[in-house]
Amino acid sequence: MQKPQHSESIIEQNCGAVRSWLITVACVVLCFAHAARPQTAPGSHQQLEQLVDKNADGWKQVSRQIWEYAELGYHETRSSALLQAQLKAAGFKVESGVADEPTAFIASYGQGQPIIAILGEFDALPGLSQQEVPERAPVVANAPGHACGHNLLGSGAALAAVSVKQYMEAHHIAGTLRYYGTPAEEGGSGKVYMVRDGLFKDVDVVLHWHPGDRNSVNNGGMLAVISAKFTFHGIAAHAAMAPDRGRSALDAVMLMGNGIEFMREHVPSTTRMHYIISKGGAAPNIVPDLAQMDLMARSPSNTTLKDIWERLLKVAQGAALMTGTTFEVTDIGSDANIIGNDPLAQTAQKNLEEVGGFTLDEPQKEFALKLQKTLGLETIPSLDLTSEIQPLRQPDPNLPSASTDVGDVSWNVPTIGFTAASFVPGVAAHTWQAAATTGMSIGQDGMMIAAKALAFTAVDLFSSPQLVQAAKDDFKRKLAGKTYYTAIPPDQKPVLNYRED
Amino acid sequence: MQKPQHSESIIEQNCGAVRSWLITVACVVLCFAHAARPQTAPGSHQQLEQLVDKNADGWKQVSRQIWEYAELGYHETRSSALLQAQLKAAGFKVESGVADEPTAFIASYGQGQPIIAILGEFDALPGLSQQEVPERAPVVANAPGHACGHNLLGSGAALAAVSVKQYMEAHHIAGTLRYYGTPAEEGGSGKVYMVRDGLFKDVDVVLHWHPGDRNSVNNGGMLAVISAKFTFHGIAAHAAMAPDRGRSALDAVMLMGNGIEFMREHVPSTTRMHYIISKGGAAPNIVPDLAQMDLMARSPSNTTLKDIWERLLKVAQGAALMTGTTFEVTDIGSDANIIGNDPLAQTAQKNLEEVGGFTLDEPQKEFALKLQKTLGLETIPSLDLTSEIQPLRQPDPNLPSASTDVGDVSWNVPTIGFTAASFVPGVAAHTWQAAATTGMSIGQDGMMIAAKALAFTAVDLFSSPQLVQAAKDDFKRKLAGKTYYTAIPPDQKPVLNYRED
Amino acid sequence: MQKPQHSESIIEQNCGAVRSWLITVACVVLCFAHAARPQTAPGSHQQLEQLVDKNADGWKQVSRQIWEYAELGYHETRSSALLQAQLKAAGFKVESGVADEPTAFIASYGQGQPIIAILGEFDALPGLSQQEVPERAPVVANAPGHACGHNLLGSGAALAAVSVKQYMEAHHIAGTLRYYGTPAEEGGSGKVYMVRDGLFKDVDVVLHWHPGDRNSVNNGGMLAVISAKFTFHGIAAHAAMAPDRGRSALDAVMLMGNGIEFMREHVPSTTRMHYIISKGGAAPNIVPDLAQMDLMARSPSNTTLKDIWERLLKVAQGAALMTGTTFEVTDIGSDANIIGNDPLAQTAQKNLEEVGGFTLDEPQKEFALKLQKTLGLETIPSLDLTSEIQPLRQPDPNLPSASTDVGDVSWNVPTIGFTAASFVPGVAAHTWQAAATTGMSIGQDGMMIAAKALAFTAVDLFSSPQLVQAAKDDFKRKLAGKTYYTAIPPDQKPVLNYRED
Amino acid sequence: MQKPQHSESIIEQNCGAVRSWLITVACVVLCFAHAARPQTAPGSHQQLEQLVDKNADGWKQVSRQIWEYAELGYHETRSSALLQAQLKAAGFKVESGVADEPTAFIASYGQGQPIIAILGEFDALPGLSQQEVPERAPVVANAPGHACGHNLLGSGAALAAVSVKQYMEAHHIAGTLRYYGTPAEEGGSGKVYMVRDGLFKDVDVVLHWHPGDRNSVNNGGMLAVISAKFTFHGIAAHAAMAPDRGRSALDAVMLMGNGIEFMREHVPSTTRMHYIISKGGAAPNIVPDLAQMDLMARSPSNTTLKDIWERLLKVAQGAALMTGTTFEVTDIGSDANIIGNDPLAQTAQKNLEEVGGFTLDEPQKEFALKLQKTLGLETIPSLDLTSEIQPLRQPDPNLPSASTDVGDVSWNVPTIGFTAASFVPGVAAHTWQAAATTGMSIGQDGMMIAAKALAFTAVDLFSSPQLVQAAKDDFKRKLAGKTYYTAIPPDQKPVLNYRED
Repeated sequence: MQKPQHSESIIEQNCGAVRSWLITVACVVLCFAHAARPQTAPGSHQQLEQLVDKNADGWKQVSRQIWEYAELGYHETRSSALLQAQLKAAGFKVESGVADEPTAFIASYGQGQPIIAILGEFDALPGLSQQEVPERAPVVANAPGHACGHNLLGSGAALAAVSVKQYMEAHHIAGTLRYYGTPAEEGGSGKVYMVRDGLFKDVDVVLHWHPGDRNSVNNGGMLAVISAKFTFHGIAAHAAMAPDRGRSALDAVMLMGNGIEFMREHVPSTTRMHYIISKGGAAPNIVPDLAQMDLMARSPSNTTLKDIWERLLKVAQGAALMTGTTFEVTDIGSDANIIGNDPLAQTAQKNLEEVGGFTLDEPQKEFALKLQKTLGLETIPSLDLTSEIQPLRQPDPNLPSASTDVGDVSWNVPTIGFTAASFVPGVAAHTWQAAATTGMSIGQDGMMIAAKALAFTAVDLFSSPQLVQAAKDDFKRKLAGKTYYTAIPPDQKPVLNYRED
Repeated sequence: MQKPQHSESIIEQNCGAVRSWLITVACVVLCFAHAARPQTAPGSHQQLEQLVDKNADGWKQVSRQIWEYAELGYHETRSSALLQAQLKAAGFKVESGVADEPTAFIASYGQGQPIIAILGEFDALPGLSQQEVPERAPVVANAPGHACGHNLLGSGAALAAVSVKQYMEAHHIAGTLRYYGTPAEEGGSGKVYMVRDGLFKDVDVVLHWHPGDRNSVNNGGMLAVISAKFTFHGIAAHAAMAPDRGRSALDAVMLMGNGIEFMREHVPSTTRMHYIISKGGAAPNIVPDLAQMDLMARSPSNTTLKDIWERLLKVAQGAALMTGTTFEVTDIGSDANIIGNDPLAQTAQKNLEEVGGFTLDEPQKEFALKLQKTLGLETIPSLDLTSEIQPLRQPDPNLPSASTDVGDVSWNVPTIGFTAASFVPGVAAHTWQAAATTGMSIGQDGMMIAAKALAFTAVDLFSSPQLVQAAKDDFKRKLAGKTYYTAIPPDQKPVLNYRED
Repeated sequence: MQKPQHSESIIEQNCGAVRSWLITVACVVLCFAHAARPQTAPGSHQQLEQLVDKNADGWKQVSRQIWEYAELGYHETRSSALLQAQLKAAGFKVESGVADEPTAFIASYGQGQPIIAILGEFDALPGLSQQEVPERAPVVANAPGHACGHNLLGSGAALAAVSVKQYMEAHHIAGTLRYYGTPAEEGGSGKVYMVRDGLFKDVDVVLHWHPGDRNSVNNGGMLAVISAKFTFHGIAAHAAMAPDRGRSALDAVMLMGNGIEFMREHVPSTTRMHYIISKGGAAPNIVPDLAQMDLMARSPSNTTLKDIWERLLKVAQGAALMTGTTFEVTDIGSDANIIGNDPLAQTAQKNLEEVGGFTLDEPQKEFALKLQKTLGLETIPSLDLTSEIQPLRQPDPNLPSASTDVGDVSWNVPTIGFTAASFVPGVAAHTWQAAATTGMSIGQDGMMIAAKALAFTAVDLFSSPQLVQAAKDDFKRKLAGKTYYTAIPPDQKPVLNYRED
Repeated sequence: MQKPQHSESIIEQNCGAVRSWLITVACVVLCFAHAARPQTAPGSHQQLEQLVDKNADGWKQVSRQIWEYAELGYHETRSSALLQAQLKAAGFKVESGVADEPTAFIASYGQGQPIIAILGEFDALPGLSQQEVPERAPVVANAPGHACGHNLLGSGAALAAVSVKQYMEAHHIAGTLRYYGTPAEEGGSGKVYMVRDGLFKDVDVVLHWHPGDRNSVNNGGMLAVISAKFTFHGIAAHAAMAPDRGRSALDAVMLMGNGIEFMREHVPSTTRMHYIISKGGAAPNIVPDLAQMDLMARSPSNTTLKDIWERLLKVAQGAALMTGTTFEVTDIGSDANIIGNDPLAQTAQKNLEEVGGFTLDEPQKEFALKLQKTLGLETIPSLDLTSEIQPLRQPDPNLPSASTDVGDVSWNVPTIGFTAASFVPGVAAHTWQAAATTGMSIGQDGMMIAAKALAFTAVDLFSSPQLVQAAKDDFKRKLAGKTYYTAIPPDQKPVLNYRED
């Protein structure tokens, strides 16, 4: 074996760490095999399913309407208003404009303990406008589109909430049900400000779902992310006549970039650091006095990411020192990774399996096959994926993943989420192919699965204090020794114009 | 002395080079002390001065009109048309739209040998709109302005041309007088295309002037410059989920930048290389598949610059190789340094001294003193500079300098130029303070000096075949062993939209 | 979910790849659960165990003698001679100095099919001389030491071979048994040249073991590695008086380094690229005309590594282009990753479990506990690890790993290996703590486990043509579509002085 | 003219600076044309010349003996002892081992004011051993050699001192004459510690000379230099198994290098910054915990260099911040530029012209012509240079130059120096060609010129209080507003082993 030649004791701690991680993984999978199972009244899930089916049409229309609005983060005025109106009409009390976010709101029903919350998102993505056809065809060129299916997300979550409320009313079930209208998930960290303002403080359990290309419970995972603009200020000078009198802000940005590249070897390999140079100088004959880097860093661990971010700030300081420039860090975004919850995951898995998937009908199949041909995949996944439920697994930190501000909620409240098959199998989020299905029946069929599984789980929680307690116990255990962290400064207001730069 | 420890024979060649350069400098200064002096008819300069004075008012108005137009390079439609109209009115034949440049033109009078040409520029600079007041006050915010005084340049050159024509007519002097209307000097390399199209092929001597803050003959100097956009193409990929599948065009631009920085130590210290990153990626979560550097390189020697540019192209190739990207080089600009001409310089110096400077009147002085206060200079130059003529000196390659496409003309035709005091002493070109005077009497007083010195020199040339021959001989001697080079590719048309990016 | 904003179809192929990989992993674990099991004669393992125990003393002494020799790669003259002498004495025919490696040899017994080979290494590591005591105490300061336990490796393999031979003789078993004396595993790629010379061409199965801190079967894994020296040549010049005349080889090395750093984001995260600057210039006042980088690259996949190495060569070319320098690549080392073999792995696992581990006696425990205290581990592994057998697992490409030239053998012959607990639990290879146990009873107790498991497996193979065939079938399947690659150029001889630079 | 587009007032201050510099240069050349001339007694120079000639043989032998010793900086034990012994024998009092430098000494004669000092160096250069033949032929391969002619320097200075003493005795001239034996000029900054210890505090004027390839007075010039080792400390880790646990000292050195490269554009173009990587990691599979840069920076201005050095320290800090490493700066060397002295320069010029050069005899010519052929020069200078005296010129900061610790003396005492033709014309210092002549008659002939010119000037100073006063006045004027600075820390002892690393 080729191993270090001159350094004698540098490996073992790491091996120890790896080993104990393996043990943890094994434990997590096994230890809750027989945890507290909810004792929901017999027949309740059947009644809930009927309620969801009964309410479905209206909410499918809402999902379609929001798909048409296709509003960007913090500008979801009409989408938010529509959801609020419908929830009010269904008997929820609505508080809007919370957390300094004009389109954020909380709809609530009932009172007392437990407090169970369902998350609803509704923002679209720039440039991904797409008709519900299996070839690239924007509704409006370069306009936003619902390529992440948040139109379904917000509507399906509301459909679940409204149905659970009806069930609670019918059965005089105590407790508080809340629907959180959460704007700007796509890069705006909308939920982080809601967490910061204490809006989740008294919640016992949070439920959420997300459109995907298969049905599965997501017990944690996703990458924590921090993003910001680093703006450097130097001294302008004529680059031919007096370059020695200039101090280049672009040099600082480039040296910061170099510093990041040199750092890559020395962060865990699951880390991601990526950036663009958003301002690289005004004219080539002037030493740039202004330059800017847009930086994102990610890690499966919010705690590790905090350390990495602090190192990145030092890289920026180093670049400033090297070049005689100054800098400020603005427009900070920050999403934590999702903390899983094993008792909730098992309940969710059971419920998702009980709901089952859905089978594409012939026109849907024809559409799906055409769409899959546009993906350029080597291996095309089977369309049967929509009818299957994936087994419950621990998230693998080495698999590709994205980020979400649900993570911050999950660091503060026991949280569990589903993916429901709303995209054609093989389709990834943030593609026009995703946008093509979120405005039509395939997406809506997936939304129904999600709404039912959410409703079952909510009612299980209202019915089983033990389950709520088990969720809380696991939450405590998972966060033992860890502190929630967001990189967003306490005095930074939501960056309402983050999409406009 | 501390000198190299392990390398034994690396210095001496350099020392030899330095030594022979010193000898050359000394020779240049001395050898032409008694060169061919023109034998212009007695009284001719006096008559010319009267003609210039007589024609002055109209051309001052033209200069003011072009100052008001303030049109950017290749878009000087009205400015060019006005000059053409006035020159036609004065009896010149005009050919317009030459060299694929809609605003370029040649106005000519007379026939036969010799052919003496005067250059006229008329383009403005972006963002430097300024009223004729001694504090920052744009006519139109962010609009172009004549901060390099090309409104005076083109008008003063025409005033000289018209006066010389009148003198030639009056005295039946043989030969051809031409006025070259040359657009887009500011970064557009307008004259280079005119040279390339052979428009200067038959010219014997070229005369030019430029506004400045003192009166002097410029016998060569200025920096050769090459500029271009380097656009790199990579492969986009999600920067969190599949960065290994991406090939970053931004990495290529940054490595090209690094390569340039490492090159600085190994080019002559009079070299300038400066750049911005004009495109640095679209979104930080995508590996950039497009990035762009705007690069300029300069040297007192066009020949040295050619070598440096070839090395810079290799740096770009290296960056592409390192990153698995490709690139193209577009929007190439190229100005040569100015080749001096000693017989012409001596004639010009004599004539400039004969014309003499001008003294600011009281209101002008008041204006000038106020303006000087805005300059933040440690040492404020005396206002007497406008009345003095600087001694004739060889250009020092180590002094700060800029670039001009007059250089390319001077590599093809014996060329000499003046600076006339049209800015307030201490004011640099390309400042609002320059723009403030080019639209008022101070600038126009400087223009008169230039017009007279140009006229004197033109008539000296028409009167003295020996002088023309001496100019040609010196031209040959100066370029012995050198080849004119422009980095602009033979198939590149003038980049008419270079100001629009 | 935050995902790409402007790039629509870049994810799905990757997801597909990940998915199919998961399926493969699952398949590998399951598909061979009921593969061909060897039908070795009853009682044979018991007889073999007795033979090994009988032969043990002599080979423990050999292991101790080689531990004392502690010879570096390609200079293991006495170690190799001792092994050869002992194997000759035991009835093996020995061919020495094979593959242009003075210390390489092949000892063989028997004839005909199958040909089963056992690998033996015997090189030490620089600077890790250590007495058999639980605190840092070199035998000779800065001298080499057996910190990777190759003294045990070579001796234990020979002990197995000799015992198997005795068994074959006793039972008239047909087939050929070979012991490969393979030098310079530590960075010298000794086996690669042996593979290249066809020395493994006719072998049916290769067995090997390696000291570790636990007992386990290693079914593939390890990192493929390529290493080389990149030597750049520039032009020296006095750095103060004529830096523009120099071309810096150090600039090239630094830009190559920069290029590698920028490449990190765009290789799979399991890749490793690491380097030193082995020559960085002679004197700071001279532009360096010589500079050198020592580079290593690694990947769990030899095929991926080939691509990465080709990209690294382009980085070097780019650096040369950027700096006007030239370079050559020398002293190339190359080890492939290990290709697992599932039928062999199952047999090996069965045999290892049959042999079982060993329990430390009281003095050993005392020693071990003291040694563990020097490790600075957060979690100290239990000493019981020596008595346990790890379950059979697929190697995880994301776990820390090293490299070995056994990999190249495994790309050419079905190969399986064990780790036996010869270090104190928690001790890593290449530490003085490892060297401390490889010269005493703990290491030798581990060696006994290895020798027995190797012997059992060898005899199983001699007894079961089906097992040999199953191994060959799996070998074919695993390498379908793949081609063996070594970066070592066909004309490069073993770099016998690679330790002397 | 192409000039800055967006920055309006960045040029003029610079232009002001340039202008005032030009004025200063002109003034310097002119203002002292009629300064105080010394009134030395008639015939004194003639007598001095005779004394020098009489004393010459012994000192030529001393110069040859030191040439044979060829001892490196701070190890010039025998060279220093020989000079001390000879000066004692000639009647000087000697204080040795001053300023913590074992080989430094002060030899003095006389008493009272003025105190006139002559500097003597005697250290050799590594690797430049060379016989007195016109082809490369070391006396001892790789051994040191007198390639900068300090054997002549120290001996010629002593020859002048002894002759002046004899003249003073003969004419009862009051005042103190000192000879400073100054070790380790080549990179050891020997004189700086002597200045720091106050050894030059009471001196009125310092005289010095240096071998060169022509005869000239050096009125200032040379580059100020600061050098140091930057040693970075990181955390070692196995580069394949745990690179994230490492912090690379080599990364820090490389980023410091990058930072320096980016800085080049933004320092005056007369600056020099050059470095090697003296320690670049121990083994490529270990993240380097130690790496080192050897850095030198130079400028014609000690004051500017101080600023640049402070910026370089910030670059190092930035690199440490970026990489999580620490660093220390050691082995600091520092030489100031030489401050000229116009009254002394004029006196020196007069005396050098009075002494005149020397003409090579036939064997010397033959030797010189052969030697010149080894130089590879495009233009070979005439051998007549040895017989000519160069005119007095101001040093050009843009011409190639080296550094000397005479600079530090000149910031503290009015100082003037000569170059005398001791190398063959065209030969540069620090070459074997220089070493070839410093041990034979050509070098010794040059030494005679120096000794005479030094003696004349010393006696002029003893004879003319006005001249001493004029020198002091000019000294004050030149340093008005400036403060002497050395980068050597107050607590750093002379780095006696600086040549051993």
